[in-house]
Amino acid sequence: MPERAAAAVVELARRASVAARVLGRMAAAERNGALEGVARALEAGATPIVEANARDLEAADGLVSSGRLTAAARQRLRLDPDKLRSLAAGVRQVAALADPVGRVTLSTELDDGLRLDRVTCPLGVVGVVFESRPDALVQIASLCVKSGNAVLLKGGSEAEHSNRALFAALQRAAAEAGVPADALALLESREDVAALLGAEPYVDLIVPRGSNALVRYVQEHTRIPVLGHAEGLCCVYVDSAADLARALAITLDAKVQYPAVCNAAETLLVHADVAAAFVPRAVEALASRGVELRADPRAAAAAGAGSPVVPATDADWDTEYCDLVLAVKVVGSIEEAIAHINQHGSRHTDAIVTEDPAAADRFCADVDSAGVFVNASTRFADGFRYGFGAELGISTGKLHPRGPVGLEGLVTYKYRLVGAGHVVADYVGPGARRFTHRRLA
Amino acid sequence: MPERAAAAVVELARRASVAARVLGRMAAAERNGALEGVARALEAGATPIVEANARDLEAADGLVSSGRLTAAARQRLRLDPDKLRSLAAGVRQVAALADPVGRVTLSTELDDGLRLDRVTCPLGVVGVVFESRPDALVQIASLCVKSGNAVLLKGGSEAEHSNRALFAALQRAAAEAGVPADALALLESREDVAALLGAEPYVDLIVPRGSNALVRYVQEHTRIPVLGHAEGLCCVYVDSAADLARALAITLDAKVQYPAVCNAAETLLVHADVAAAFVPRAVEALASRGVELRADPRAAAAAGAGSPVVPATDADWDTEYCDLVLAVKVVGSIEEAIAHINQHGSRHTDAIVTEDPAAADRFCADVDSAGVFVNASTRFADGFRYGFGAELGISTGKLHPRGPVGLEGLVTYKYRLVGAGHVVADYVGPGARRFTHRRLA
Repeated sequence: MPERAAAAVVELARRASVAARVLGRMAAAERNGALEGVARALEAGATPIVEANARDLEAADGLVSSGRLTAAARQRLRLDPDKLRSLAAGVRQVAALADPVGRVTLSTELDDGLRLDRVTCPLGVVGVVFESRPDALVQIASLCVKSGNAVLLKGGSEAEHSNRALFAALQRAAAEAGVPADALALLESREDVAALLGAEPYVDLIVPRGSNALVRYVQEHTRIPVLGHAEGLCCVYVDSAADLARALAITLDAKVQYPAVCNAAETLLVHADVAAAFVPRAVEALASRGVELRADPRAAAAAGAGSPVVPATDADWDTEYCDLVLAVKVVGSIEEAIAHINQHGSRHTDAIVTEDPAAADRFCADVDSAGVFVNASTRFADGFRYGFGAELGISTGKLHPRGPVGLEGLVTYKYRLVGAGHVVADYVGPGARRFTHRRLA
Repeated sequence: MPERAAAAVVELARRASVAARVLGRMAAAERNGALEGVARALEAGATPIVEANARDLEAADGLVSSGRLTAAARQRLRLDPDKLRSLAAGVRQVAALADPVGRVTLSTELDDGLRLDRVTCPLGVVGVVFESRPDALVQIASLCVKSGNAVLLKGGSEAEHSNRALFAALQRAAAEAGVPADALALLESREDVAALLGAEPYVDLIVPRGSNALVRYVQEHTRIPVLGHAEGLCCVYVDSAADLARALAITLDAKVQYPAVCNAAETLLVHADVAAAFVPRAVEALASRGVELRADPRAAAAAGAGSPVVPATDADWDTEYCDLVLAVKVVGSIEEAIAHINQHGSRHTDAIVTEDPAAADRFCADVDSAGVFVNASTRFADGFRYGFGAELGISTGKLHPRGPVGLEGLVTYKYRLVGAGHVVADYVGPGARRFTHRRLA
């Protein structure tokens, strides 16, 4: 009976909107205390979570046998006591961040005795539909509790039992610390998601995290604001003034280190002046790591006869492969590279490799993306790596203002990342570098 | 031929998106220089503008005779050299504001040599559909040039000639200062607006300023983000700890000073403890100024036998009158007032009148509106009065983040205004008080 299910989800959302006001009024210390309780529950309550996870892993084995799930995806489903301890550490990191609620970001005396403050406050109720591993449930719920928002969560069906067990542990621990039980809710079916998208008066934001198809479905079926991005078509541009060793390391990291994700590179643009020196090296290194290269005629010529490149078609410049495939193009100027990115990119994250500060400035100013990176891999575009503790999602939208909109409402921001050849691979695995995350301003 | 018109508008938008990058790269001094040129053009080029305005006024006379335009609306259409000088002063005020572009709002060292900055940048291309007086064209265009945004403008048909003359003067003066001509465009027909709403790849934001019907039409016919508000259902709540003289002055200002606008009050909530003392005074003062009062049974009882109130229906609590009508209700507690506002209000601006700081804090925290005012009239909700120079519109939306979204993306802000009985009427007309607009933080 879908009507009944839809009404039940709308009722969950309505109760969440009431609970959100209670949560939003809790002091920062109380919200942080709830997070500490959640962290302890993940450590102390590992057994039922790992048991529930075992059921999902067993079902996943069947999906892997029948080719409906990759072995890597099954591996990412796995929860064990070590993994839960690491999730608990992440929750404590979020608790340790500065309180985002009640900050005064603008304060103006309008006249004697008449004072205007712009004060931050929670959004209200957030609905998150995620297809990824169950870790996401813990991270999203932590961010929401910290920021005073109620959250309705819908995870992937392949992690159904794990999500239920994690959610139960979280909700119980948060409730013991005073967070209303209605402030956290778990949705379970596609019909629940459809109902969520229609719960307009009670839900302030919908965040789809997953495939392009999921994001498009959500965007087309709700009038609630949607945060996220359908595509992540990131580009790396190797400038004429690039350090080619840095360029190679950044290109490899951006393409190979984790190709299935939105911040991996899909297109490599190379300035004509360095094409002869760079393209053959890049092709060799990428091909040796299993990357299929689709080249425009100039890039193919630079790669040389007998190189493993195949001709690119027009569609390649607009394709997010999420796989070991890279489109390669030679451009005559930085302007051509910027124009290509603004036309074919997805406003997510794009990188220039250059030793020329003027080129870096030009690229950062003119590329119309949420992330503009200099001498660093696109793979750094991530809430944890940015120092946000975790992330709700990545937004390629630009809109933000509330109330009377003046100049501040007419600008958005981009994240500018400047490195010296930094790659994400150095921050992963044994002996990984640790981020310093030192606040400069 | 609508197809041809639509393609032409999309081409205007495409050219605006190219011009926006040039404008966005201009230094602050260059953008301010263009605004100074616009101000001089309004002062020096008054004659053709006033002549064009005379044609609109003549047409408006016919509309007034046939009852399709009010005499007040015709009066607001009027441009004369004095009015143009005052518009020029407004343009110079916008030029004098701090540059909103290129501000670093967050800066973090991620690791040695790896630095992340969040840098403000223009949105790109803004489309504004406004029904109000031609002044709006100058204010919107000034805000856009100052903030590095291209703008497509569509004004009301009753100001057609005035808008053309103003636009021509603006575009010419801006172009002389280096602003690409394509960065400013004037749309002229309803078909143009329909085409604008479909120019998705080139337009970053649509701002409808006008009737609820216009706002709803725009929201339902575009996938481009829309900034604005359909309704402005503002409430004034007179708390048990209110100074009743202040409460009366604020209620009168919020209802009577300019009833046709979105920040006028539509509902008056009165705490039961002060109903007997306040409601009869308020009813008398409001009725003597021509306000029709629609009261719930307790408010009617408090008003007393023979008072001019009529019974309110359920629909009254959800109606934006934009006229000399006010719904009045007695509530048993501040919680009931807050619940009423969050259920029936429009998240625009709501005010509490109280001498109790705890009640003020509770109201500001729990009312889910863009503006939460203490002891000040809702009519202060306005970009100029807030010190923004002018306003693009007023947003009741909450969304804003871009890039990886952590805690800062999970909070929005509200404007908290605290006064001591301040009313807008004191800032209007001869001997008007001047805003100090002193930045405190």
